[in-house]
Parts: sequence; structure tokens; C-alpha cells
Amino acid sequence: MGLGRLYITTANRQFAGIEGNPKSKYRIIGVPYDSTTSFRPGTRFGPDAVRLAAAGLESNSAFIKDVYLEDLSPLDEGDVAVSIGDTGETLARVEAVVRELASAGLPVMIGGEHTVTLGALRALADRKPCVVMFDAHLDLRNEYLGLKVGHATFMRRALEQVNIPRLIYIGARAFSREELEFARSKDNIITIFGPSDLITLGPINVASNVLSALKSCESTYLTVDMDAFDPAYAPGVGNPEPLGLAPYEGLYLVSRIVDERLIGMDVVEVSPHYDPGGGTAALAAKVLIEAMLKHYVSRAKASR
Amino acid sequence: MGLGRLYITTANRQFAGIEGNPKSKYRIIGVPYDSTTSFRPGTRFGPDAVRLAAAGLESNSAFIKDVYLEDLSPLDEGDVAVSIGDTGETLARVEAVVRELASAGLPVMIGGEHTVTLGALRALADRKPCVVMFDAHLDLRNEYLGLKVGHATFMRRALEQVNIPRLIYIGARAFSREELEFARSKDNIITIFGPSDLITLGPINVASNVLSALKSCESTYLTVDMDAFDPAYAPGVGNPEPLGLAPYEGLYLVSRIVDERLIGMDVVEVSPHYDPGGGTAALAAKVLIEAMLKHYVSRAKASR
Amino acid sequence: MGLGRLYITTANRQFAGIEGNPKSKYRIIGVPYDSTTSFRPGTRFGPDAVRLAAAGLESNSAFIKDVYLEDLSPLDEGDVAVSIGDTGETLARVEAVVRELASAGLPVMIGGEHTVTLGALRALADRKPCVVMFDAHLDLRNEYLGLKVGHATFMRRALEQVNIPRLIYIGARAFSREELEFARSKDNIITIFGPSDLITLGPINVASNVLSALKSCESTYLTVDMDAFDPAYAPGVGNPEPLGLAPYEGLYLVSRIVDERLIGMDVVEVSPHYDPGGGTAALAAKVLIEAMLKHYVSRAKASR
Amino acid sequence: MGLGRLYITTANRQFAGIEGNPKSKYRIIGVPYDSTTSFRPGTRFGPDAVRLAAAGLESNSAFIKDVYLEDLSPLDEGDVAVSIGDTGETLARVEAVVRELASAGLPVMIGGEHTVTLGALRALADRKPCVVMFDAHLDLRNEYLGLKVGHATFMRRALEQVNIPRLIYIGARAFSREELEFARSKDNIITIFGPSDLITLGPINVASNVLSALKSCESTYLTVDMDAFDPAYAPGVGNPEPLGLAPYEGLYLVSRIVDERLIGMDVVEVSPHYDPGGGTAALAAKVLIEAMLKHYVSRAKASR
Amino acid sequence: MGLGRLYITTANRQFAGIEGNPKSKYRIIGVPYDSTTSFRPGTRFGPDAVRLAAAGLESNSAFIKDVYLEDLSPLDEGDVAVSIGDTGETLARVEAVVRELASAGLPVMIGGEHTVTLGALRALADRKPCVVMFDAHLDLRNEYLGLKVGHATFMRRALEQVNIPRLIYIGARAFSREELEFARSKDNIITIFGPSDLITLGPINVASNVLSALKSCESTYLTVDMDAFDPAYAPGVGNPEPLGLAPYEGLYLVSRIVDERLIGMDVVEVSPHYDPGGGTAALAAKVLIEAMLKHYVSRAKASR
Amino acid sequence: MGLGRLYITTANRQFAGIEGNPKSKYRIIGVPYDSTTSFRPGTRFGPDAVRLAAAGLESNSAFIKDVYLEDLSPLDEGDVAVSIGDTGETLARVEAVVRELASAGLPVMIGGEHTVTLGALRALADRKPCVVMFDAHLDLRNEYLGLKVGHATFMRRALEQVNIPRLIYIGARAFSREELEFARSKDNIITIFGPSDLITLGPINVASNVLSALKSCESTYLTVDMDAFDPAYAPGVGNPEPLGLAPYEGLYLVSRIVDERLIGMDVVEVSPHYDPGGGTAALAAKVLIEAMLKHYVSRAKASR
Ligand SMILES: [Mn+2]
Ligand SMILES: [Mn+2]
Ligand SMILES: [Mn+2]
Ligand SMILES: [Mn+2]
Ligand SMILES: [Mn+2]
Ligand SMILES: [Mn+2]
Ligand SMILES: [Mn+2]
Ligand SMILES: [Mn+2]
Ligand SMILES: [Mn+2]
Ligand SMILES: [Mn+2]
Ligand SMILES: [Mn+2]
Ligand SMILES: [Mn+2]
Repeated sequence: MGLGRLYITTANRQFAGIEGNPKSKYRIIGVPYDSTTSFRPGTRFGPDAVRLAAAGLESNSAFIKDVYLEDLSPLDEGDVAVSIGDTGETLARVEAVVRELASAGLPVMIGGEHTVTLGALRALADRKPCVVMFDAHLDLRNEYLGLKVGHATFMRRALEQVNIPRLIYIGARAFSREELEFARSKDNIITIFGPSDLITLGPINVASNVLSALKSCESTYLTVDMDAFDPAYAPGVGNPEPLGLAPYEGLYLVSRIVDERLIGMDVVEVSPHYDPGGGTAALAAKVLIEAMLKHYVSRAKASR
Repeated sequence: MGLGRLYITTANRQFAGIEGNPKSKYRIIGVPYDSTTSFRPGTRFGPDAVRLAAAGLESNSAFIKDVYLEDLSPLDEGDVAVSIGDTGETLARVEAVVRELASAGLPVMIGGEHTVTLGALRALADRKPCVVMFDAHLDLRNEYLGLKVGHATFMRRALEQVNIPRLIYIGARAFSREELEFARSKDNIITIFGPSDLITLGPINVASNVLSALKSCESTYLTVDMDAFDPAYAPGVGNPEPLGLAPYEGLYLVSRIVDERLIGMDVVEVSPHYDPGGGTAALAAKVLIEAMLKHYVSRAKASR
Repeated sequence: MGLGRLYITTANRQFAGIEGNPKSKYRIIGVPYDSTTSFRPGTRFGPDAVRLAAAGLESNSAFIKDVYLEDLSPLDEGDVAVSIGDTGETLARVEAVVRELASAGLPVMIGGEHTVTLGALRALADRKPCVVMFDAHLDLRNEYLGLKVGHATFMRRALEQVNIPRLIYIGARAFSREELEFARSKDNIITIFGPSDLITLGPINVASNVLSALKSCESTYLTVDMDAFDPAYAPGVGNPEPLGLAPYEGLYLVSRIVDERLIGMDVVEVSPHYDPGGGTAALAAKVLIEAMLKHYVSRAKASR
Repeated sequence: MGLGRLYITTANRQFAGIEGNPKSKYRIIGVPYDSTTSFRPGTRFGPDAVRLAAAGLESNSAFIKDVYLEDLSPLDEGDVAVSIGDTGETLARVEAVVRELASAGLPVMIGGEHTVTLGALRALADRKPCVVMFDAHLDLRNEYLGLKVGHATFMRRALEQVNIPRLIYIGARAFSREELEFARSKDNIITIFGPSDLITLGPINVASNVLSALKSCESTYLTVDMDAFDPAYAPGVGNPEPLGLAPYEGLYLVSRIVDERLIGMDVVEVSPHYDPGGGTAALAAKVLIEAMLKHYVSRAKASR
Repeated sequence: MGLGRLYITTANRQFAGIEGNPKSKYRIIGVPYDSTTSFRPGTRFGPDAVRLAAAGLESNSAFIKDVYLEDLSPLDEGDVAVSIGDTGETLARVEAVVRELASAGLPVMIGGEHTVTLGALRALADRKPCVVMFDAHLDLRNEYLGLKVGHATFMRRALEQVNIPRLIYIGARAFSREELEFARSKDNIITIFGPSDLITLGPINVASNVLSALKSCESTYLTVDMDAFDPAYAPGVGNPEPLGLAPYEGLYLVSRIVDERLIGMDVVEVSPHYDPGGGTAALAAKVLIEAMLKHYVSRAKASR
Repeated sequence: MGLGRLYITTANRQFAGIEGNPKSKYRIIGVPYDSTTSFRPGTRFGPDAVRLAAAGLESNSAFIKDVYLEDLSPLDEGDVAVSIGDTGETLARVEAVVRELASAGLPVMIGGEHTVTLGALRALADRKPCVVMFDAHLDLRNEYLGLKVGHATFMRRALEQVNIPRLIYIGARAFSREELEFARSKDNIITIFGPSDLITLGPINVASNVLSALKSCESTYLTVDMDAFDPAYAPGVGNPEPLGLAPYEGLYLVSRIVDERLIGMDVVEVSPHYDPGGGTAALAAKVLIEAMLKHYVSRAKASR
């Protein structure tokens, strides 16, 4: 079944100014969903903002020499046709689309709110992915404002619905007592690297610790809530929370953590209305680029 | 000595810079509800924006001589404690609050999204109010994006749940085929004055026609969706729709239509993020002021 | 030759929330060109802003009863792949694309700067179109800042390169001595309706006068520079000039002037950075909708 | 004594893109004063915003044929070196500068807050100017927030300190009871044309009435508080007040009222932070241009 | 049934989404004063912006385990009713209010401009507080723009009017020659930790040095001018000055320096107009939260 | 030949609030050029934004004790009268102006786009300046979007047209394969210090390395593209690129690298539309101040 038969609206953009190759392993998909019932504000404008910002970036890597995004020619598949206000239906569509994309290569998703990650994880459930989650928050509430499935609860649901052997948080620093207790009760699965860990250990050691924790994983999924970064670098998010990552820390960690086991990734929560300078979107685009480049190089090495 | 004796504003704010009288018949209440499940954008910031704008306005009337808002000293009661994401619960609270306020005087509500008007109408249901609704839209869909109760459907629900003898639209100009058919099918109740009526008849005659249509009404309710005005005058709304009312038309009509039969009113859909100059909020505040002044003068005359 | 072979990037949006019919006669095309040599500001963001605004509008007409945009299901073809900084090449591509679209139906172009209209007029040159141009300016300079082909000179070039039997300006009010002298020297071709004409004659008579002037025309082309409207209604343009049209005047004139002779149209000069409330984009979308609806109804009548 | 000896900082701009003639009778001067004690927001940025907007306008008149601003080549003298936070000193400097400019031609002042007009009126006191004041407000309070000399009181002070035979308000619509009583008590001097007058009489008759009221005046001074216009057209002001003038009304009245008796003029209260589209500044620049053009033509006629 | 029984927030707001306990020792008070004489821009909007931002934060601490703001349930008392334009009167009111609040617990003030701190210090004068001041500036001028009491001079006044045994600056980096000479002349009282100190010593040692300097103090007052932080993290201030603190440095220092001796605190100079992403307000809220949590834990320990 | 005979419009501002001394060695000149053919957005507003920001800064140095900008009293010469849309002519004017300024002292240029640096380098060609360039990019393309002379190619042209013994990049991190290959092929001239160098070596060692590389240089030119800084600190640039310098790194390096050999400098690419908080402009002003102060102190020492 072709993608046209799914819920995708055809793309009209080259990602980062590069002509996408229809045979590329890298498949970019937007999910302009923010679960508000009405027209206008929010992260539904995130995918287009990230694409726009990507067009202004160069295609080199900050960490890997002599590889350029042109070498991968990622294909922008357009956006999932979301069902505004209906989270269940939208997640079902995300799941279907990501499953299809995963059969062809690496799904690279741009949110939208963090809830959409639940759909992607369901699509990849039979791969039993370990999850690395950059986020200021844990998103582990059992219920939030009466909602069982939302941006503040989706990872609790994911742990219930998907077999996730390890869940590593990076940049987490804002949580309720309930969430922290829950995370502590799952300490065989959940590990948190917060701001003090980054300051005490430094990004190099944090990366090594994360990689150790992922050692037994057969596949990984990377999800980056942009509020993991400090509001100075990522003002355009729903809930700015001080004490976030610096770009170097975040990008370095992404580049270290991604390897050939990666089976999917996303950046979420870009909210362009709060991003007048466009820095949040540019940083989100850079996260995608570094992750794709590292995966490309890792796969090449692994298949040698 | 208690704090109340010092210089602290114990109630939220003085409306329009006037010390509210606890015995005033005019009770202002905000409803910062926009049914989004998460923190930030939307009309939930409307009540505070309207209050701020009111503080910059003078207290005279554009249509009635020698009456000033100080003569009424309206009391700002603060905000309804909404239940974010739970429209049913929020409407129940609005209903309870408006019922209480109505027992003391005239409830004057500031939205928030238009849906909150449904709560107010329920509170006043036993008064069988005729409704005058300024709006670019009809809000008469049976369902919108899967929702039965929302800003695009609330008046359909109101007609089902509340005995509304007459429903007069002013400024309506954007609708689906379904909505217009529904309105036509209820033409004993529903009358629409659109942009061409205003141009052809002029505001004076439109006002007279509305008053004729309201002749048999024992009580009236006024609801003003700010998108009834043209986006030039009211850019800060959810759905800007060209060809709206000019301020003079809208304010004149409000001042003509309000009389001693008014039992409640609201302005809704002010969305401060799209109102950098604050003109939308200022115009909304002016609507409130003119309506209160006219009601005050009408009551005085009627009780003589 | 299919459109894919031309310079078009595939569309990923439904215009105004309506599923485009591949067989629709109405073909929408963006031209994100603003002749700046570098990434970022300007009218290059116009096409996407107009599409976004269209999604928030209803599909009825302000002037014609019981016709809805769904009846036409216009097809959004995406954007012309412009050559940034190379006006000659870009105009050549616009010309090729518009010629192709015209063979299938009515080209409906969204700018971008006004210069792109020159490409469309060249594509339609063998139809000898009379041109109706809404604009604050005449765009008739012989040269501007050393440029022969630009937004301030393009209509001078069009008169040299294309057989244009009549050129009618509506809303023109800002010009140099040179431009006015030139227009006066061509008074067999050029007619100007400025702000005083609109005030003195009223829109109804202006429309009749325009239609008289177009009587002998076999085909017409409509181009709407959004600065024809007053900056209150259209702040998001390159050169805001006071004393412009009100939306009712502009939309009414568009609806009156368009008939089955229309062979192409555009709206240009929407500059989203100066349009925080989105009103300019919404008005531009409304111009497109009213023009398409009127053309649809006129064709239906004419073919009966 | 040359201007360099006064409190002027040398200009570095051509007004409206026209090379200023050192012998021009038209002398433009900015007064970036907003009486705040500290760096940043407010109308102190007004003069530069108006100059920037002027550069985007054409130089023709909306009301007078075949005269262009190039014919006058007004000279931009730069800004008065204001004394931030010291209104008394600043007014003394404005007075000195305007007196000097008046000896050479027509002082054309750009505010800054309305208070600066008091300095200009003092400078011209021996000419006993009748004053035409466009303003939403009366600025006739005796005291405001403890201040005797400020934007809300300055005209009360002017009436005390300067011999002003007639004071005509246009667009006034927001006032306290005290101010209106004061104005009524001076009805031999003060006349108010408010929104209803403009609607009832129309601008043509209002202009005639104003000219009648000015018949016995030997000289006139024109001051335009941009809040006289509706917030739709002039969002960038300190106190947006609904129901203001449309640009056509305001500009037409300016063009009618100005004649060879004009001895000074100003536009004030442009607050760029609330003017993201720049429309307020463009309209203010247009006011200046129309007034200068009309004065130029009137003088030419009068001296024939 | 009284309104208090319904769903109305009678006090202004719950701080950080927490129901304030009327018996809480933590009393939050806004001072929306910015000494401008007129409506609109500036730090007068600071208190509401900080409250809004607080509502989006979680209630945990970045430095102390297992304590949450719910454990303190701070009470938001609303705003001091300032006297706009009258600094003397406003400071008198601040002094009265802070004295009252101090009798009940810890006054936690949100500015407003820095001048308001003078009022708080006077209220606490008999406690002879040592002062820790985060600021880019020294605010030690003898006079600024003719003003004796203002944001650039208030600490000079405080040293004259209040017995302040020690004054420690953190983040100071911008000063005039006069201010630095004055500070040097008081080196038995005044110590400055500037950017180079933070870089050379690191925040841990700076904290220790500050605590040493405070050793003999019986009580402390903490005042945080948000311009102490770098403009990247706190763009929304009156005078952005490069080379400021990073959030980690500032928050860590606050958390280290605050102990049970704290008798009052404030954050000031949040200017929401320059804070489109809201990061400044969020950081200011976080400063308050960390300081309150640390004080709470210190008191608990001290009283054991 | 006096400057008035050149292409300069006279200045009307004191830089950083300091009365410029006509005999000062420090000559500030703006170049409001952004090569777009039309009115409005872009870096053409950069010079005025930097001047405005400078007025809010104090005049001390972050690195050198007891020297203040007043000691230098730099003179603001105003702006070069650019020829919009004609890069060749504009560069010729910049060249003439900088040559004249260099004969009197140190030219300190504020852009505008980076291309203007080419004009300055040509003016100083006979001094054979070594160039230190802070930039996220290399600007070494041979052609960009068909342009031979533009912001992405200007340094390639400079290397062809001017004898530049050494070219040191600081902060460079975004480039095409072609540019990097070119730079590598010139490794006797070109050295790049990227983000990893700064992290690995630290700013102190990078500064030493740069000074070593400059050892044999007789004169130096400093050009600072503000995108060298991270978008958090400098959001207001054309192409925000993550992973840029922190202000301390950049300013420290500037202060270390500048010495008495400096013969010219500039800051470029400030784009105020993307700088709502003004932090980019403030940082650019600080770069200028630190560089001038260090040069002043170095010259004094060298001439002793
Ligand atoms: Mn999340
Ligand atoms: Mn998060
Ligand atoms: Mn509605
Ligand atoms: Mn509506
Ligand atoms: Mn045009
Ligand atoms: Mn135009
Ligand atoms: Mn005024
Ligand atoms: Mn006024
Ligand atoms: Mn301070
Ligand atoms: Mn400060
Ligand atoms: Mn560059
Ligand atoms: Mn660059």
C-alpha cells in the first residue's frame, strides 16, 4: 500500500534546501497536531517553522567531518493529515504512517505536541525500542487536567502500551512529586540525567553513561522535546522551564547517542509564536540534521 | 490592623480605574477558558487584556450625555476558576456563578471563548431571554471536529437547552451551507443582519428593526463575539473574517438595543496574542462600558 | 507535458480546507519571490500565509447566495520553484507555469512581489487581456533604483511587452510626477479610479464605470496588490500608504468586475512580518475566494 | 544666532527621500520626549519612526493636483536635544528652537508626547494663534496623577500661559466630567467636533464650520495627536480609544483647514512599539505632507 | 450563599497554581510601579507576567530534594495600589505593606522597577539587614537625569536611610566612574562579584565567599534585578547588558545564599514587552520559588 | 577633501550617550545596506539599532580597569549614503569613506550586511591587513544564487582583490563542502577556530593561538558578523546558526586580539526585526566599545 493511500498530504518542500531522493532511507514527516479544538496558535505550526529554519542552515555536521546532508538526500514526505481535537484518531494515523515509513527507512518526525510520540512508539512496538527522551519534564502523570492521553501523560501511557526496556531522560528538571515517585518505582527501567548531572559529570561522561545504559538494547528511539533546552536557546516552546541544556550539550549528546540501532526519532513542541527570532526552530532542525548524519555514518560503518 | 486596611487591592482590579462599589448592580466576571488542554496561547488571556485596556479608557459615553461609569461603580468580581480542558465542568461553574451574580444585579462576563455563553444562558434560562448575538459566524453547527459543545456549535446547543424566543444575529457573514439551512428552517426565531443589511439599511434602521423584533421579549441577553467587528478594528480574535462591523456601527447598535430588559451580557473571543496594539481589547472594553451605561440610564428612566 | 516537468513543487495543502479536485478548473499557484538575494524577510512568505489564513475562513460568498467554494473544489498546485535573486529566470518560470495552468483552467496566483504579474501577463499575451489592477501605486516608473524590471516598474514593462488594450487602476493614490504624466499620455488605454472617485461616485458606480471601460475586452486579467487596501485592513504589505480601499469596496468591486471573461488573476505583496494579526492574509484569501466564486457563477450562466 | 547654538542635534535624514533645501521654508524638527525617567519604550521613538515611514511614501497630494513635496524640499533639522525627565527644561528648549525656526519659515514638529506642543505654543505666543487640535482627548485636566504639566493637562496650561483666541477640537471623544465642564465654561473659545458631528455633518461641513470659527483668526496652529484617528488606523499611540477618525476624514480636514495663516504644526503621540505594521507612522507622515503641501499652495496663491 | 463559596478566586491568583494558605508564612506582593506618568509600557506589567509564568512551572526545586512549593502554600496578596508618577507616596505604601507582611511572615515582592526595593528596606530597617543584590548595575549614582530617587540611585539612598551592615553585589558589570569610586570608598561595606569573579572562582566559591561576608549578619535581604542575568536568559528588562549570569549560576547562588536569616526578598525589572517568549518572567518566578524553598528548609532545620 | 564632499549624511547622534569629539581618533560610520531592491526589512536598520542600544549601555570595560569610553569620545560620523540595490556603487562609496576616515583615525563601521566589509578592506589594501573574522560562516563561496559579490562570497572576492597575509576565522561552524575545500587549499593563509576548538582549548588559549598567528602582521582588521554568537545571544541576524559563541568568549577574544596594530573594524548583520529584546544590538555595541577601549589602551602603551 502506497503512502498516498495513507493519511499523508504530499510534500512540497526540499528539506534544508536539498532535493529529496525518493529512494532515500531518511523520511521526514510533520505532525501538525496540538490537540486544540480550534484554528490558530500552538505547535501545529511547528513542522513548517522547522522546515523554514532548515532552509537557512548549512548541511555540514558539527561533530563529524566531511559528511554533508546532501549525501543522504532525505525525503520530506509532507504532513500527517491530523484529526484536530481527536487525539485517538490522530495517534492511529501517526501509527499507520510511521509503520509504513519505517518499512522504507528511518522515520524522522516533526511535531506538534509531544503526545504524537506515543503513536510513533506504538508503530515500532514490535522492535522493543529503548527510548532516549530529551525533555524538561517527565510526562509521566497518570492524568492531567482530566486527560488520560496528553502531552503530560503520554509517556506513562507508552510504558503501559509498548514494551520499552529502558527509558533514559536527559535534561529533566521539572516534575511533580507523583511523577518522581513513579519514576523511582521503575528504576530498573527509568534513568534521569538532570541539570546537576550535566554540570557534575559533563556531557562526555553523561553520553558514556547513557550508552552504557543502552548497551543491551537492540533498537533505540530518540525523542527530543525542545523544552529540554534552556529557554534562552529554545524560547518557542509551550512551557519554558529555566536551567535547560545548552545547544552544545544537547547536540553533542544526540550525536553520541545515535548509532545504527536507531529506528525512529522526533523533535516536538516547537511553538513558533514564541520564537520571533526563529532560534528554536533552527535548533530543532539542527537536532534532526545531526541525528541523521550520525545514523548515516554509523550504518555505513556497521555494514562494512 | 488587617491588610484590607492598607493599600492592597483585595478584589482583583478596579474596572476602568474606578473603585468598585460592593453594592453596585454591575458585576463583572472573567472566564479565562479556551478549552485547550495546555498552558499558554488563546483567549484565556482575554479577561486580563480587557481589564488592562479598560484602565486606559475614559468613562464617558459616546452616545449618552452626562453619564459616567463612576455613576455605576461596577464591581469586578475576578475570574471564574475554570476547569481547563473540561468544558462540561467549566460551563457548570459559569452557570452557578452567573446565577448568583444575576440575583444581585447584572452579570457582565468577559471571555474566553464563545462557548462560555452557553453557561450564562443556562443560568438565565427561566427568564426566557431573547438573545442578540454580534458575531461573524452563526455558531450553529451540529458538530465541529467531532465536538458537540464548542465555539462553533454552542448556539445550536443553547437552542436545544434553553427557551430562547428570539435570536438576532448582527454582523454574521461566514457560515457553512448546513448552518444557513438550519437558520432558515428556524426563521420564526432566528433573524440575521449581515454586512449588506448594514450597508443597505444603515445602522439606525437596523437598530429599529432589531428593536421591533425584540418587542415581545420580556428579557434580553447580549453576547458580543469580537469577530463581529472587522479585523482592522479587532485583529485579536480567533478567526479574523473580513467585512465586519465598524466600531461606530457596533457600539451604536449596542447602545440602541440595550434597555432595562437586559439581564446579562458578555464579550468574548478576545485573543491578545494577535492584538499587539491592544485595539481589540480596548474596543471590547468600550462595548462593556456603553452597554452598562445604557442599561443604567434605561433602568433609571423605567423606574421613574 | 505535465506540471511535474515544469518548475512546480508539489502542493501539500487543501485550499481553504477543501479537498482539491484534480479536474477542477481553478488552479492555485504560489510564487514566493521577493527578489532579495538572501534568506528571510519579505513577501516570499506570502503564499503560505494566505493559505494558512484561507483555512480559517468559511466558504460562502459575501455577495452571491447559495454558492460555496466546495462547489468549485479548487486545486492547490503548490509553488513555482523560483530562482532567488534572478528575476529574469523566475519570470520565465512563472510564464511557463501559468501558460500550462491556463490550458487547464483559471490560473490563480499568490505572490510574492508584484513583479511576478509580468510573467503571468506574458503567458496570457495572445489572449490580449484587459487588465484591472488594484494598487496604491501605478508601478509605471521607467526605472527604479537602477532596476528596469521590479515591483515599481513592472507595469511599464508589461505595456511594452504585452498587448493590453485597457488598463484600469483601482485605489491608486501614490505616484511620482513622471508616472502620472506617463499615465496621462496613455489615456486611451489607462484609467485611474482613486480614493476621491470612490468617495464621490461610490463603489456601485465605480464598478459600472469599470465594466463600461471593459466592454470591448474579450478577456480580462485581475491583479490585486494588497496595498490597494488601507493599511488598517492590510498592514502586512511592503509600502503601507494611507487612504486605501475598505474591504467592502475592494471585495464588492472584485465581485462585480469579474465575469466569464476572466482568464487569470493574482493577489500579491502580502508581507506576513508586518501582519501580526493575520488580517492582510485573510483579506487576500477572501479576494481569491470571491473572485473564483463569481467566475464560477458567471461561467455557469454564460454557458447556459 | 545659528541653530547649532541652540539645542538641536544635526539631522542626518532627508525627509520623505527628498534632498532638503537649506533655504526651504519648511523646517522639520523631532522632539523625542516622553517624560519617562529611563531608557526605552514610548513616544521618544516617534520622530524616527515617522521619518522612516515617510521614506516609503510617494510625494504627491491626495487632494491637490500637480504639486509634489519636491517643490518644497523641506529641511529636516534633526531633533531637539531633550532633557529626559525634566519637562520644564525640555519645554524651554522646544520653545527656543521653535522660535528660531519660525523666524526662518514654518516649524513642523514631530513628537514625542503631546506636552511638547506647549513649548511650541509659547514660542508663537505673540502671534496669538488660534489652535486646531485633533485629539481623542481634551488634555484639559487641571492635574493628572499629581502632575501639573503633562500630556493630560498641557492644553489647560496653554490656555493659561498663551493668548489663544479660539481652540477647536476635532475627533475628541474621551473626557472626564471635569474636563467637559471646563470646556463648556469656555464656550466662547472652545468648540468640539466629536464623532457624532462627523457622522451627522460629514467632513465637508465640519471643515466649513471650522473655517467659519477661524474666520477672525490672524494665525493658526495645528496639532495632531494621532489618537484622534481610530485605533485601526493608528494603533501605535499611548491610549487607543475607539471611534476615532478615518484617515480620509482626518487628512481631508487637515487639507481644508490649513491655509496661509498657519504658523506652526505638529504630529504627536506616535508610539512605535504598538505599531508593528508601521501604519500609524505612515499616517502621521501623510498628515505632515498634506499640511505642508496645502500651506505651500495657499501661500503661493495668497502672495499672487 | 456568598460568592466566596462558589468558584471565584477572591484573592488575585494562586501562585504557581497552588492554593495559597491564609496562614502561610510566605506572602507574595506585586508592586506594578515604573514611575512613568502615563498608561502603558514598562515594568508595571511585571508582577502579572511573573505570576503567569509561575503557573507554567513545576513546583520542585533544582537544588533541594523532595521539597515542593505545595509544602509552603505561599499566599498571593495581590498588588500594592501604587501612586503612578509619585515615587515618594508609592514608597511609603510599599513600606507600610511590607512592614505588615513582615509581621506575618516573609515578604516576597515582585516589581516593578528597582526603586521599590527602597520601600522594602525602609520597612525592615530596624532589623539592620545585610543586602545581597543581583544586578548588572550598582544603582549608586547620587543623581540621575536630575532625579534623586530612581532606579539608578536608589541604593545610594538606601545606604543613607537604612543601616545596612553589608552590601554584596553579584553580577555587577556596568557602572560609571563615579559609582565605582563611591563603592570603593565604602569597601568595608560593599563587595562586588562581577563576571570575571564568577568565571575565575566559579559559582561554588563565590557562594562561599558571599556567605563568609554575611557571617556576622543577623538578617539578610535579597534583591534580584533581572538584568543581572545575561540578556539571552532575561531579554525582558529595561537595560539589557551583555555578560550577565547564566540561570544556573544565579539560581545556585540564590539557593546557597538564602538561609533562615532571610527577612525579605524581591525580583524586579521584568519588562514583559521585551520578553516575547516569556523566559525572563519564568526565570524570575524560578528565583522566587528557589528562594522560598531554601528559606523553608533552612527554617525547618534551624528550628529543630 | 572634507567628508561632507563624500557620501556621508551628517550624524545626529552621540555614540553611547557621549558627546563626540571632532578630533577623536575613533570614527563611527553606519552602512545601512542590505542589497534588497525595495523598502523595509533587513540589516539596513542595523546601524540605528546598534546606536540605540549603545545609548543604554554603561561606558566601562569588562576587561580593562579604569578606562571609560568618555576618555576616547568617539565621533559618530553618520551613515554612508548607500545606493540601494547597487552593490558595486555602494562598495565604491564605502571604500572612499573608509579611506578618508582612516586618514584621520580608526574607522569603526556598523553594517548592514557583511558584503560592506569588502569596501573597507579595499580602502585599507595598501596596509596589507591581516583579518580576524568572527562569523558562523566562511563567506567563501565562489558564487551564491548567481551572485559573485554578496554576503556569502565577499571574502572570496576580498582574497582575490586585497593582499591579506592571514585570515583567521573565529566561531565558524557552517559551510558547504566547496568552501571548506577552498579554505583547506589556502591553509597557509586561512585558520579556522570553530566551536570544538573553543570548547577544547578554552578562550584563553584560542586567544593566544590567534595572537601567535598574527605575530608577523603589521596591521589587523577585525570584522564581526554577529551570527558568530549563538542565536540565544544574537537572535537578530539573517541566518541564525546554533552552536555559536557565548558573549564572554567573543568579547574576551576581541579584547585580547585587538592591539595597536588595528587599522579598522566593523560589526555587521544585525537585523533588528528578529531582535525584539534588543540583545543582539546591545551585544554588537559592546563589541565596538570593548574593541575601541582596548585599542585606545594599547596605543597609549605602545606610544609610551
Ligand atoms: Mn514533553
Ligand atoms: Mn516538556
Ligand atoms: Mn462566536
Ligand atoms: Mn465568531
Ligand atoms: Mn504594485
Ligand atoms: Mn503597490
Ligand atoms: Mn493629546
Ligand atoms: Mn490623546
Ligand atoms: Mn537595579
Ligand atoms: Mn540593573
Ligand atoms: Mn558573514
Ligand atoms: Mn554569517
